[in-house]
Amino acid sequence: WEGEFFPGIPTIKYEGTTSKNPLSFKWYNAQEEILGKKMKDWMRFSVAFWHTFRGSGADPFGSATKNWPWEDGTNSLAMAKRRMRANFEFIKKLGVDLWCFHDRDIAPDAETLEETNKNLDEVVALAKKLQGTKIHPLWGTAQLFLHPRYMHGAATSSEVGVYAYAAAQVKKAMEATHYLGGENYVFWGGREGYQTLLNTDMERELDHMARFLEAAVAYKKKIGFNGTLLIEPKPQEPTKHQYDWDAATSANFLRKYGLIDEFKLNIECNHATLSGHSCHHELETARINGLLGNIDANTGDPQVGWDTDQFLSDISEATMVMLSVVRNGGLAPGGFNFDAKLRRESTDVEDLFIAHISGMDTLARGLRNVAKLIEDGSLTDLVRKRYQSFDTEIGTKIEAGKADFEMLEKKAMEWGEPKVPSAKQELVEMIFQSAL
Amino acid sequence: WEGEFFPGIPTIKYEGTTSKNPLSFKWYNAQEEILGKKMKDWMRFSVAFWHTFRGSGADPFGSATKNWPWEDGTNSLAMAKRRMRANFEFIKKLGVDLWCFHDRDIAPDAETLEETNKNLDEVVALAKKLQGTKIHPLWGTAQLFLHPRYMHGAATSSEVGVYAYAAAQVKKAMEATHYLGGENYVFWGGREGYQTLLNTDMERELDHMARFLEAAVAYKKKIGFNGTLLIEPKPQEPTKHQYDWDAATSANFLRKYGLIDEFKLNIECNHATLSGHSCHHELETARINGLLGNIDANTGDPQVGWDTDQFLSDISEATMVMLSVVRNGGLAPGGFNFDAKLRRESTDVEDLFIAHISGMDTLARGLRNVAKLIEDGSLTDLVRKRYQSFDTEIGTKIEAGKADFEMLEKKAMEWGEPKVPSAKQELVEMIFQSAL
Amino acid sequence: WEGEFFPGIPTIKYEGTTSKNPLSFKWYNAQEEILGKKMKDWMRFSVAFWHTFRGSGADPFGSATKNWPWEDGTNSLAMAKRRMRANFEFIKKLGVDLWCFHDRDIAPDAETLEETNKNLDEVVALAKKLQGTKIHPLWGTAQLFLHPRYMHGAATSSEVGVYAYAAAQVKKAMEATHYLGGENYVFWGGREGYQTLLNTDMERELDHMARFLEAAVAYKKKIGFNGTLLIEPKPQEPTKHQYDWDAATSANFLRKYGLIDEFKLNIECNHATLSGHSCHHELETARINGLLGNIDANTGDPQVGWDTDQFLSDISEATMVMLSVVRNGGLAPGGFNFDAKLRRESTDVEDLFIAHISGMDTLARGLRNVAKLIEDGSLTDLVRKRYQSFDTEIGTKIEAGKADFEMLEKKAMEWGEPKVPSAKQELVEMIFQSAL
Amino acid sequence: WEGEFFPGIPTIKYEGTTSKNPLSFKWYNAQEEILGKKMKDWMRFSVAFWHTFRGSGADPFGSATKNWPWEDGTNSLAMAKRRMRANFEFIKKLGVDLWCFHDRDIAPDAETLEETNKNLDEVVALAKKLQGTKIHPLWGTAQLFLHPRYMHGAATSSEVGVYAYAAAQVKKAMEATHYLGGENYVFWGGREGYQTLLNTDMERELDHMARFLEAAVAYKKKIGFNGTLLIEPKPQEPTKHQYDWDAATSANFLRKYGLIDEFKLNIECNHATLSGHSCHHELETARINGLLGNIDANTGDPQVGWDTDQFLSDISEATMVMLSVVRNGGLAPGGFNFDAKLRRESTDVEDLFIAHISGMDTLARGLRNVAKLIEDGSLTDLVRKRYQSFDTEIGTKIEAGKADFEMLEKKAMEWGEPKVPSAKQELVEMIFQSAL
Repeated sequence: WEGEFFPGIPTIKYEGTTSKNPLSFKWYNAQEEILGKKMKDWMRFSVAFWHTFRGSGADPFGSATKNWPWEDGTNSLAMAKRRMRANFEFIKKLGVDLWCFHDRDIAPDAETLEETNKNLDEVVALAKKLQGTKIHPLWGTAQLFLHPRYMHGAATSSEVGVYAYAAAQVKKAMEATHYLGGENYVFWGGREGYQTLLNTDMERELDHMARFLEAAVAYKKKIGFNGTLLIEPKPQEPTKHQYDWDAATSANFLRKYGLIDEFKLNIECNHATLSGHSCHHELETARINGLLGNIDANTGDPQVGWDTDQFLSDISEATMVMLSVVRNGGLAPGGFNFDAKLRRESTDVEDLFIAHISGMDTLARGLRNVAKLIEDGSLTDLVRKRYQSFDTEIGTKIEAGKADFEMLEKKAMEWGEPKVPSAKQELVEMIFQSAL
Repeated sequence: WEGEFFPGIPTIKYEGTTSKNPLSFKWYNAQEEILGKKMKDWMRFSVAFWHTFRGSGADPFGSATKNWPWEDGTNSLAMAKRRMRANFEFIKKLGVDLWCFHDRDIAPDAETLEETNKNLDEVVALAKKLQGTKIHPLWGTAQLFLHPRYMHGAATSSEVGVYAYAAAQVKKAMEATHYLGGENYVFWGGREGYQTLLNTDMERELDHMARFLEAAVAYKKKIGFNGTLLIEPKPQEPTKHQYDWDAATSANFLRKYGLIDEFKLNIECNHATLSGHSCHHELETARINGLLGNIDANTGDPQVGWDTDQFLSDISEATMVMLSVVRNGGLAPGGFNFDAKLRRESTDVEDLFIAHISGMDTLARGLRNVAKLIEDGSLTDLVRKRYQSFDTEIGTKIEAGKADFEMLEKKAMEWGEPKVPSAKQELVEMIFQSAL
Repeated sequence: WEGEFFPGIPTIKYEGTTSKNPLSFKWYNAQEEILGKKMKDWMRFSVAFWHTFRGSGADPFGSATKNWPWEDGTNSLAMAKRRMRANFEFIKKLGVDLWCFHDRDIAPDAETLEETNKNLDEVVALAKKLQGTKIHPLWGTAQLFLHPRYMHGAATSSEVGVYAYAAAQVKKAMEATHYLGGENYVFWGGREGYQTLLNTDMERELDHMARFLEAAVAYKKKIGFNGTLLIEPKPQEPTKHQYDWDAATSANFLRKYGLIDEFKLNIECNHATLSGHSCHHELETARINGLLGNIDANTGDPQVGWDTDQFLSDISEATMVMLSVVRNGGLAPGGFNFDAKLRRESTDVEDLFIAHISGMDTLARGLRNVAKLIEDGSLTDLVRKRYQSFDTEIGTKIEAGKADFEMLEKKAMEWGEPKVPSAKQELVEMIFQSAL
Repeated sequence: WEGEFFPGIPTIKYEGTTSKNPLSFKWYNAQEEILGKKMKDWMRFSVAFWHTFRGSGADPFGSATKNWPWEDGTNSLAMAKRRMRANFEFIKKLGVDLWCFHDRDIAPDAETLEETNKNLDEVVALAKKLQGTKIHPLWGTAQLFLHPRYMHGAATSSEVGVYAYAAAQVKKAMEATHYLGGENYVFWGGREGYQTLLNTDMERELDHMARFLEAAVAYKKKIGFNGTLLIEPKPQEPTKHQYDWDAATSANFLRKYGLIDEFKLNIECNHATLSGHSCHHELETARINGLLGNIDANTGDPQVGWDTDQFLSDISEATMVMLSVVRNGGLAPGGFNFDAKLRRESTDVEDLFIAHISGMDTLARGLRNVAKLIEDGSLTDLVRKRYQSFDTEIGTKIEAGKADFEMLEKKAMEWGEPKVPSAKQELVEMIFQSAL
């Protein structure tokens, strides 16, 4: 394969909201400063190698639909390298600096682990070269779900051989991430869960998972990798029930096993809604538990019960996401990874660009909306005032843990029936919507 | 009101599975020994005062349908006492020893907290007398959700006056529970949550909730109440999102605020399914976190998105519930509370008995099925064998936290591709069903 | 009650998007022409008497929270009249011409049907006077779900006496609607469904429902009422399963019983999503079945499984709703009824105005967005071009029903493997979002 | 491949409920007479070729797990023939007479339609021979969803070439089904739906679908195929929204286009629950619309939002299914097709047998339960009595369409407040459960 992979596609530029050019940014202006930071530093957008370069369009009822011109139909090492070159052309034309990968989506499996590792080494060496000085991974990870050996789990497999294999794979993926200058390392436990409790020893499996993560922490320290370790909650799919169901479940696990200071969370919006929460809820739950580390920027379909991994296009959702990010002071060393895929029916090469641009613009628009809300100030004000009765002497005592039931009973009797004002939810929604 | 409240209804007897009498037990035989314990000691059934005696049949689109003959249409103290007498006749005829109550469903609100407390004292004194030596509360609790003052929450209200009022109410309800010989005290945070994050300071509200529970623990110790404190998870309804979403969320909260050793969980099956989990999952999650304290024995409708609080009638679900209970060694000092209500359209007095009998028989049948499964042994065997590769030298090292990534990598390379056997899920389901 | 009901609230004016005044319209400008029609003629907004004037804030776990100053705590005829005067002041200050009502929410039940009818007559006479020349009902309806007599259904009750009673009530409500100049009459079958199929003869109940609707058609004609009869689909709540589940189910029922030409549908957005469809889907299904008659303008919470009847504030949803309305050439003689309620915690009188303004502005903004999309033209173009292969000779034959399988097989063999272009979904979403 | 495909597996026998042998029937006794018919004639079980012989265990996150010994890793014609021989050995050992197939799962695709048809001819000829005199297809169908050409639909594709191709494929599949003695022909429109309404002309697509089905009816008559044509409703997956959403939606479509007398429905339990209905509801809806033609006997996971196609193991659900079947007088010429797959983790050959046996036994147990309920009679009685007020003079008039609103109003006033008895739902559930 000689020359460009995307010959008709220029480097994507910011052209503002009046532009009708689908191959331009209308809202995302990388160098523009918003709320004291460049947009690119708020967003830290990352391209997900697997969806963008390994997404075939297959679904449970349909075979592959994508026929990218650079693919030759093989899963060879040569093909892996060519694909990696396409990846970096894509990244550069899109104007981002970060990318994410699973070990097995960048390099092919071989007969033995040793040979597989060699394949990985070759592709990683190429990636290192292609990265240049500006680009590096937001994070790397090991693919511990596709291969049949992982059908009962990786760290939670009932087979000790699988546990060991998974450990070896994470070890290598962590080394690769470190070598490439990755800033984080992610654990998504797609097979860490159960299909039925009737054949499962959940307690033993969770213990194994804890042991596995402890070993990962130890190894990270040993090799001097300073990146953040991230757990990615998901409630289900492929398993009926995954152990990292949502942010709170993951936090409970980390606390129970004494791992709470070693990990943060990678919140995915589509996983949030599958677990019955809004994305905003999961972000806030992670944030106030001190665990908001990264966001997988996608969205689901509100009427659909599986992971659609769509590029975000809802302005309202994007604005709420950015509210959490701004409150968190940004995400660095984490960022926004586009764990999002083209629809099966989107088969033009340019669709890859359009989808990313749309997702980036949507979040950028969200950030601009948050800036408007903050400037306006009325929303923040309203919330602050709601709780002002706790900014009193007795409120302060309560918050300091110095108000016992006897004292409070006395106060309650003294005060009589408390006055309870309107929550003004419709006003809040009006203010919020005005900023969109 | 003179004489019997349920004149046509005899004391309910065990008549065995051939009986066609709806007013008899077919599976629940209180004194029969199963798996080394009397059925009554496994089950510890409790009547929920609110559903059975205050359930009106009203729903969001319909007014009350129940016209119990002993009700006079008032919410007077006299009516409260008469109702309490009906309660104990019901309990005795049903043949149980335990009951549960909210402060406000047994005694009416008055103008001031002082007078309301007096009302409560009078009814509690009567209940104490009616209890005799055999009957006592499984648990008591404070109703912190019905009154408009609690519309923004109780411990998490934005108003300090409401926080104090709630504290006073819990103080009193805990005293009443203690006085009546209650074995547990429950917190269900129906209003502890949010309607929209846009007007909510979730972090501050959660801090307040922790302070409140700490004060409850302190007060419990002060008055010498040795009952277990229970948190009852529920994902939503009435609020859009409750803070005690599910077992894992509640556990995370308790761990974060250092309260994990002071509380257990009251798992409700209908709440479990509303949060996207099976009841069995929630019970097992509570159990392996050391938190399984009590069960609210009801069930939901699998096609319905709100709390229907139906009496359990599904044998398969009941068998899974009892699997957890047996593994837990029983529930004492907790038990099974019938937090279940008649359908709005069930308006005969005898329906109250039929519903309880049906719920009790279903769980008793579940217990009998568990006994069959345990005797048969093949299910337990199958699960044990699934994990036997961890009962090896390397497995033991892993479980002891002594297997680092380097050692595991070496093993993985040495072993080659691991063998992964069938999970036998269909066989497991066949065995399970055979016991029903 | 003397003087104004809403003393501090002025008549709501259009002030444009720069206004920060919550009591002004930012997007809805009644007299402004958009797409060839005045905004008011596109929208035909109507105030729902029940939510706005009878909504108490009660929910399944909480008692009433609204303390409107004009309410005296009674359900008297005098109170009903005072409330009606408040209603018309509200309507006028909001600047709309239409309202909707249930018989029983405007006038109190009495001991007998005759007296109840008299109560209704009195209030209706007052309403007629207060309406003046400009205001009239968008529609009226009978409340056949609140009273316990309807617990098993109205037209589908197992009791013939209830069927007769419901007929009498609809007869009267239809007369009242006609007298007041109502343009439509609605059937919402809240209790027409089942709680369990095990005690239900669904076929017989559906036959009864058909007989009932036939009688309604006959009576409408007899009294010379020319308004449209509307069925309002809802999947469930209060019953487990309602017979008018969704638009397609209702259409099937109407076709089966030969009623398809006598009825249209009143689509409610929150009902749409509860049935697993987007609101847009239900509107389009109604439209292409020739049945789109009216819209109940509300929305639900995407994470909640019950009817929240919130005022619309989502711009994206509103734009899709308006796409259907514009394609339908408007809704007249139907319109947008605000079947939406304040949150339980919104307890200020001004919240009633804020909520309506927000809902009206959201839909008005949707209309403006549709105008932008139509002017731009690229979305329409893209869809037209997608199907252009059917604008050919063979396509035309197929559409005319003249292409048999043998001819098509010959063509398929002649043509070889068909080319299938990208669906451009991400581009479509980008274009759509650009108009918001 | 020489000799047996399932060497260790005997012909499955009925051994009764005391048997512990997983490879025996405990409830299904083919020749035993129940309710006046042999069990085999009630059940008419059919093996689904695709799940049993083409199911690979792949899922959206995992590759194939099944390594059946007879598979050689190719999709060759020789492999197709060998697989077909395995199929008939399986069918015979299981002791059933019926099977179901998609054209493309029994024979491989080739370069051109002509060659593909030739492949199909060869495999069909072999199947004809292997069928012998006792075995034949319950139904055949065309696979119009796997190939990328169908990504926008088959009959509803935006491309006329795809419409023609689909017609050619159905023509051929119908011929094959007819040749093999198939009793029905099924349409499952997996891709007939939309991913977003924004790029879809739903009305035009539905018209195309109607034209397509009309042509299918015409061709069926032309070739003298007397089998029933069946539509298989499914709400979604793979598309966001399928046109045959549920039974009522399909019925509406058939009525609208005048096709109601030419088609019946193939109800799938897992599809029912995905559309928000119980399986029993969908079966009853099909039945009372005169459309219950066949059942795809599987079940879903109540906590999961996608199609799991599990073998039925729930006794309660099976009993409700059989209630509908018995009311329908059986399903012939339809039957029960096992559209159910092994879990991905079930990888032993014997699991194929265990799963089928479990599914067959569960439904057989359901039939035995229905017989018990009918013998007992109390459930039927209770339902009959619920409606007895309609077995009166006025009830009869209503049912005959001779009761107008004026007459009914007179009756309502004459009768006064109607008495409304208890619905006895808990009693009904108790009776139902007693039969399990």
